[in-house]
Amino acid sequence: MDENSIIARLQQRLAACSSAELSIGDDCAVINPLQCPELAAAVAARGAAQLGEWRMVLKVDSIVQGRHFLPQHAGERVGWKALARCLSDFAAMGAYPQSALVAVAMSDESYVPKLERIYDGLARCAQTYGVEVVGGELSRLQGEGLVISVSLSGWVEAGHYVRRSGASQGEYIVVSGALGGSIAGKHLDFQPRLAEGQWLARKGIATAMMDISDGLARDLPRLAAASGVGFELDYAAIPRSPGCELQQALGDGEDFELLFCCRDLEWLGEWQQNFAAVPLTVIGRTQAASTQALSGGFDHFERV
Amino acid sequence: MDENSIIARLQQRLAACSSAELSIGDDCAVINPLQCPELAAAVAARGAAQLGEWRMVLKVDSIVQGRHFLPQHAGERVGWKALARCLSDFAAMGAYPQSALVAVAMSDESYVPKLERIYDGLARCAQTYGVEVVGGELSRLQGEGLVISVSLSGWVEAGHYVRRSGASQGEYIVVSGALGGSIAGKHLDFQPRLAEGQWLARKGIATAMMDISDGLARDLPRLAAASGVGFELDYAAIPRSPGCELQQALGDGEDFELLFCCRDLEWLGEWQQNFAAVPLTVIGRTQAASTQALSGGFDHFERV
Repeated sequence: MDENSIIARLQQRLAACSSAELSIGDDCAVINPLQCPELAAAVAARGAAQLGEWRMVLKVDSIVQGRHFLPQHAGERVGWKALARCLSDFAAMGAYPQSALVAVAMSDESYVPKLERIYDGLARCAQTYGVEVVGGELSRLQGEGLVISVSLSGWVEAGHYVRRSGASQGEYIVVSGALGGSIAGKHLDFQPRLAEGQWLARKGIATAMMDISDGLARDLPRLAAASGVGFELDYAAIPRSPGCELQQALGDGEDFELLFCCRDLEWLGEWQQNFAAVPLTVIGRTQAASTQALSGGFDHFERV
Repeated sequence: MDENSIIARLQQRLAACSSAELSIGDDCAVINPLQCPELAAAVAARGAAQLGEWRMVLKVDSIVQGRHFLPQHAGERVGWKALARCLSDFAAMGAYPQSALVAVAMSDESYVPKLERIYDGLARCAQTYGVEVVGGELSRLQGEGLVISVSLSGWVEAGHYVRRSGASQGEYIVVSGALGGSIAGKHLDFQPRLAEGQWLARKGIATAMMDISDGLARDLPRLAAASGVGFELDYAAIPRSPGCELQQALGDGEDFELLFCCRDLEWLGEWQQNFAAVPLTVIGRTQAASTQALSGGFDHFERV
């Protein structure tokens, strides 16, 4: 099977692109930014000069067989995860995704049927979150294996996105959903908190935000360090997935929930009206700067 | 060595980002499109409404150790190649690159010193062509190996870029430089024809264009098929690298020269004034549509 015929088989799994003037089959993909609905709406409301106020948002993320998924995992779920991980990062900025590129590296053609299912999952995730897969790349690994890299691009208005570095002392530390035990299945099937993150950013509620990918124990110190604050956690309050111990909630990783800081909680009623299915929990407060570590968490490059 | 310390070592190799409001260290990179000089110049000359006429250009490309480079190749050259391949695709559209993301997958930490050299090469190529490396990703392969994926984003004005599909019957078929023998070293050290491709696009000279990555024998039929034309080649005219036979010029691949069609040759004098060091050769003419194949060329996914 040659490269062209594999690409043709994969391309069939994808929806047609409407925002791409050019996609698979030319040297590059060419995208009209105004096909991003939020950007188009801003321009319609405030005029073309508004375009200069928007920023391009870029993210790349890879998943590796044996590390982020296993051979026995259904390809459809693997493909969902590959794109959903990038969307979770967009959620953590409050950004609006538009276009994705997919780079696949695999050792041999025996992966092609699996890859077709992976593309089904990519396509379903893309459709669910309004993203278009506009191009890709196929290469052959020398060793055994399968790697899926997704590059996601999109938009956010200047001054309306949330960094990790914006928290101050005395703020609330909040997480969405429940933590721990993702390995039971959620790491493949999670819903990136995209609308939720966009809402928190647009309303100016979150002062600092990230998604929890390596576990609260690793990710909270990163957010605190970026913001130059310390933190005090109410360990009993940390929301745990059913059957999980505290150490799992702290350290399992791949929760893909939002972790953010905010100055008050007056907006909680409005949150519940909008996102009734997604609970929020205050798990602590920021305090004066200090170097703090928590035990646990997942290092993507640790020796396994 | 954990992920954070490897990333810190690699980040040191990169120049500081001026167009990125956020780069390495947050969930996503955030880029101001108006830091792309060509886009900014167009807006300065014609006003903000002009922004709506620009299109985002996206490309991803991967190189794999053992396939696109060898363990004994200097990392600095490997890093140059990783980005230059994407730039060659931008050249073939006449597009203006702005930001790159780099995803690395490797089997173990023994690759880190090599990877530092690779980042030196990426940084040098980025600086040479006015690109900023604004983020990346590190993951661990299960099998032995090293994969570098580069995602490049940039801009082009609507109606001022060149597809593969725009050629008509009776046009000239032209290539830049000389073909064949890239494996002797050029595949690592080539100069992507970025300014040349942008010039051909801006002047409206090229009706269809691509870069030669898999060899003329594979790439010309792709351009012809996309344009719905046939072709007649003057085999004796095909410019060969020193010491190369015709079959090498047709089939070696990784030439990273421009292949394009044009209606006349009146602009050749102006080309020579601008790009004296880059010869152009007419190698044939397009003709009525037909399905044509040439023998030779490189399939990135062929069994090796």
